[in-house]
Amino acid sequence: MPEYKAPVRDIKFVMQELLDCDKHYKKLGYDDASEDMVDAIISEAAKFTEQVIAPLNQIGDEQGCTWTDGVVTTPDGFKDAYQQYVEGGWPTLSQSEEFGGQGLPYSLNASISEMMSSANHSFAMYPGLSHGAQATIEAHGTSEQKQQYMPKLVEGSWTGTMCLTESHCGTDLGMLRTKAILNDDGSYAITGTKIFISAGEHDLSDNIVHIVIARLPGAPEGSKGISLFIVPKFNVNEDGTKADRNAVSCGSIEHKMGINANATCVINFDSAKGFLIGQENRGLHCMFTFMNAARLGVAMEGSAAAEAAFQGSLAYAKDRLQMRSISGVKNPDGPADPIIVHPDVRRMLLTQKSISEGGRALIGYLSQLVDITHASDDADVKADAENKLALLTPIAKAFLTELGFECTSHGVQVFGGHGFIKEWGMEQLLRDTKISCIYEGTTGIQALDLLARKILGSKGQILKPFMTDIAIFSKDNADNPAMSEYVSTLNSYAKQWQMITGDIGQKAMKNADEIGGASVDYLMFAGYVTLGYFWAKMASVAQSKLKDGGEDEAFYQAKIKTAAFYFHRILPRAQGHAACIEGGVDSMMALASEDFAF
Amino acid sequence: MPEYKAPVRDIKFVMQELLDCDKHYKKLGYDDASEDMVDAIISEAAKFTEQVIAPLNQIGDEQGCTWTDGVVTTPDGFKDAYQQYVEGGWPTLSQSEEFGGQGLPYSLNASISEMMSSANHSFAMYPGLSHGAQATIEAHGTSEQKQQYMPKLVEGSWTGTMCLTESHCGTDLGMLRTKAILNDDGSYAITGTKIFISAGEHDLSDNIVHIVIARLPGAPEGSKGISLFIVPKFNVNEDGTKADRNAVSCGSIEHKMGINANATCVINFDSAKGFLIGQENRGLHCMFTFMNAARLGVAMEGSAAAEAAFQGSLAYAKDRLQMRSISGVKNPDGPADPIIVHPDVRRMLLTQKSISEGGRALIGYLSQLVDITHASDDADVKADAENKLALLTPIAKAFLTELGFECTSHGVQVFGGHGFIKEWGMEQLLRDTKISCIYEGTTGIQALDLLARKILGSKGQILKPFMTDIAIFSKDNADNPAMSEYVSTLNSYAKQWQMITGDIGQKAMKNADEIGGASVDYLMFAGYVTLGYFWAKMASVAQSKLKDGGEDEAFYQAKIKTAAFYFHRILPRAQGHAACIEGGVDSMMALASEDFAF
Repeated sequence: MPEYKAPVRDIKFVMQELLDCDKHYKKLGYDDASEDMVDAIISEAAKFTEQVIAPLNQIGDEQGCTWTDGVVTTPDGFKDAYQQYVEGGWPTLSQSEEFGGQGLPYSLNASISEMMSSANHSFAMYPGLSHGAQATIEAHGTSEQKQQYMPKLVEGSWTGTMCLTESHCGTDLGMLRTKAILNDDGSYAITGTKIFISAGEHDLSDNIVHIVIARLPGAPEGSKGISLFIVPKFNVNEDGTKADRNAVSCGSIEHKMGINANATCVINFDSAKGFLIGQENRGLHCMFTFMNAARLGVAMEGSAAAEAAFQGSLAYAKDRLQMRSISGVKNPDGPADPIIVHPDVRRMLLTQKSISEGGRALIGYLSQLVDITHASDDADVKADAENKLALLTPIAKAFLTELGFECTSHGVQVFGGHGFIKEWGMEQLLRDTKISCIYEGTTGIQALDLLARKILGSKGQILKPFMTDIAIFSKDNADNPAMSEYVSTLNSYAKQWQMITGDIGQKAMKNADEIGGASVDYLMFAGYVTLGYFWAKMASVAQSKLKDGGEDEAFYQAKIKTAAFYFHRILPRAQGHAACIEGGVDSMMALASEDFAF
Repeated sequence: MPEYKAPVRDIKFVMQELLDCDKHYKKLGYDDASEDMVDAIISEAAKFTEQVIAPLNQIGDEQGCTWTDGVVTTPDGFKDAYQQYVEGGWPTLSQSEEFGGQGLPYSLNASISEMMSSANHSFAMYPGLSHGAQATIEAHGTSEQKQQYMPKLVEGSWTGTMCLTESHCGTDLGMLRTKAILNDDGSYAITGTKIFISAGEHDLSDNIVHIVIARLPGAPEGSKGISLFIVPKFNVNEDGTKADRNAVSCGSIEHKMGINANATCVINFDSAKGFLIGQENRGLHCMFTFMNAARLGVAMEGSAAAEAAFQGSLAYAKDRLQMRSISGVKNPDGPADPIIVHPDVRRMLLTQKSISEGGRALIGYLSQLVDITHASDDADVKADAENKLALLTPIAKAFLTELGFECTSHGVQVFGGHGFIKEWGMEQLLRDTKISCIYEGTTGIQALDLLARKILGSKGQILKPFMTDIAIFSKDNADNPAMSEYVSTLNSYAKQWQMITGDIGQKAMKNADEIGGASVDYLMFAGYVTLGYFWAKMASVAQSKLKDGGEDEAFYQAKIKTAAFYFHRILPRAQGHAACIEGGVDSMMALASEDFAF
């Protein structure tokens, strides 16, 4: 089992040196988020995740959650760890002070979420989902609803869920069947069965507040007839205290590939008492307001998994002696060389490292954009942040989870046969991470959201501000010979990205299926270039730091060398995707569905 | 749980139409392998795998093997199924008549192995490994050893294993510590602990014959000091009957990511009685003689997994209704369209299909080469077959297992959230298949074998005969306009392959690490092109069949359309690998191992 060590130095590099969070927080009025405070919180979070959360990862996988007569028990140690999590005030960090939160920025919490997710994907999901439920109530609930539910949710003594999926519909929520019928007292009777409800039932909190989508009688068909409801496990008195049990029950939990310590529940609503959030039939709209944040959270799971896999792989690769380096013996006193001398092992390690660190930079940047949407009072700045989030969130979600999954697979591979054995912990990372490519919208759905809805839906306009950022960066670094290779490569990829976009747009006018045919390759191409931009920025910052002299030279040198690896060995993969896009959709649509097999 | 249906039509297409096995078998003197006989055996094997083996796949995963005081029990139904397997004469199919085998060609058995592996990876490994042990004894044992061990092994009432790995060495077998000391009676006392011994202990057979590598006192260091021994679980009398228990015991079994129904054992040899096979210190050499066949068997697991994932995905994609086609409603009477209408779902299905069918063609071809090495009396023909096997086996092993793993991941993805749930069976395929990228030499090891040992080791000479095949195929199809796109694309890739080879050779003269830096990308490039050649050949055969008229038009059309998909959407991926190779090794070697993390 690899021991998790929070990458504090790199988290600080991203937050403070790359993204200058101090200035960013000051500008947005987050006065409490001083450099000292950020340092202290990061250090405490590192300790907590290393000492409390990470040690439960493997036992959580082994034991899983258990279901008995509707009661779900989390694995040994989870309840106690969650208690410590609440007592430490962690759930409240970036929540509104109005409801007992500490009012710190989203992006600060995001860096802690990354540590939690690397340390224990299953555990991290409990607070993650609860934040989603809170965001919904805070954005769309009445002030009474907020007073009733938010304080306990913010505190963490209650948790929340999102109840969307039904057995016949996941992506296509317009097909949902769960019904909501108005009661005399203004509440609604919710009836239906939801599946795949993460953290839907468990023993960590006193109450569970479900956010449920359902259909009102006579509601329009499809996604325009979806309404959103608060349905608590225990009814809640007006003063926010817990009352009697609501007609909500957990019918069973799923047996899954991974994230075994997070209960994935079938939740039955049997005329359960629910309360409308927002307007009737506007449920999907309400959900979209926090969808970006939820997807960003899953994107982070991808790079967090890459980090965890990297740590395990690196320790093993330094320790495991096997074969001699092809370019000459490196460990003459040992019976063989450590496998980190072999180029192909390094390829896997550096892939993990460049995705983990590159992903951290991308997520860090997007989290700051979320801060801006929360706290900026400049409408233009806010609109620009929303625009960039709209573009980059599906890219981050799908690209980082796909690459994160690849990195966990490298983790297994670096360990050879031992990687396949549970006790080493590497295969668990792979199993846990696969879900991140699926939930909150599969890779295919993110790709359609990006290409169809956003890129082509805006006739490419949405791409422009990001391209401008690349152009500005290029200009800023034009006179720096150490950056010239990065700048010219990046520019050529940015141009290619725009050309590909234009080509698909042209083709799509003749055949709309060209969009779906190109979408995933397009997203992956975009992902490689986007991360290239962040790697170039990191290299540039590291070069400046080196020029300034001072400490941490090896750290900055490593950053520059990893950027070089990314540009030479990862970014070129984009050419495979570009070539596949060129192949067009015709050969994908030619087979009638009955002719796929004989 | 997807229901397995043996792809009989496609297996026959590959064997009979693409590779003309009838002529091939006649030429080699396999007179019993008539077309009727082949048909009958394939049909019976299909029935057996569908009805007996496949239904045990899921229960095998759930229950796994259990270990109690050295005794390993296979999951419910495995013992009975194995009994049926033996009674049906399946283990004997391609074994020597001298020892009770049916003397049929290797390639015929390979097509049955594919079905077994798609149906139940864990089950298929028991006979698979036994065949490996038999091949070793048959090739290198004394005639007494053969008489003692072969009949029961061939019959299947005994099974065999390969005991190579120790906890500190897998790839680097030269480091092994297991000792062999000569006894007075000419036998050896074998002492040591082997790990990762698949089928090392179980309840399917009366005796287990371990083939063990060990080191004699004073043997040369490294791989030149490895000797090979037969070490049976029960000692064997001279007449081949079972005697008393040998000092061989199973210390424990591993808890693994997958292939849970195949026991992965720690085997302790405690002065166990063993018998030298072949010459002293020539053990590794003896093993190499059947290494190609073993690796070919694992390569087949890759395409077999792609087939199984394809079958599950296809059934689900036709059945699952979700969203409307972007190019217009396709299922107006239903609440949504089946997801097979969506281009990106088709991309995943066609990737699975093209890898499964393309892999089948490649494996079929390589299996015929093995037939030639077994049965041809023409030394040149035999040498040519061995040469091509040497080139194409590592490509097939690594490329097909990597792509097979990808295809099982697509299988999970096509099912969305349901793919992550055990009951649907898709995640098991992914978990089971990952091991194929590792055992019998990881992807990285195959890539070094290909590029360092074979390609550069022969100064590229080993590549020439295959390039000649492509040239001949191109010439044969030069006048066929329907093939012109395939031919020109294939030729351009073949040229690029040779150029890349030359470039790496140049670079490697300056820095040997360039080989390891390029190796996996090089192998993947080679894999895409190799499969492209087989897809072009299949398209050409299908076109001829259509021209001839007659039955199965839809089947041949599908073949041609799948070839088009492969050429337009899969083969271009090779460009990503080519671009990464161009990136060189410098950025991979720049970081000191202590600077990978801070």
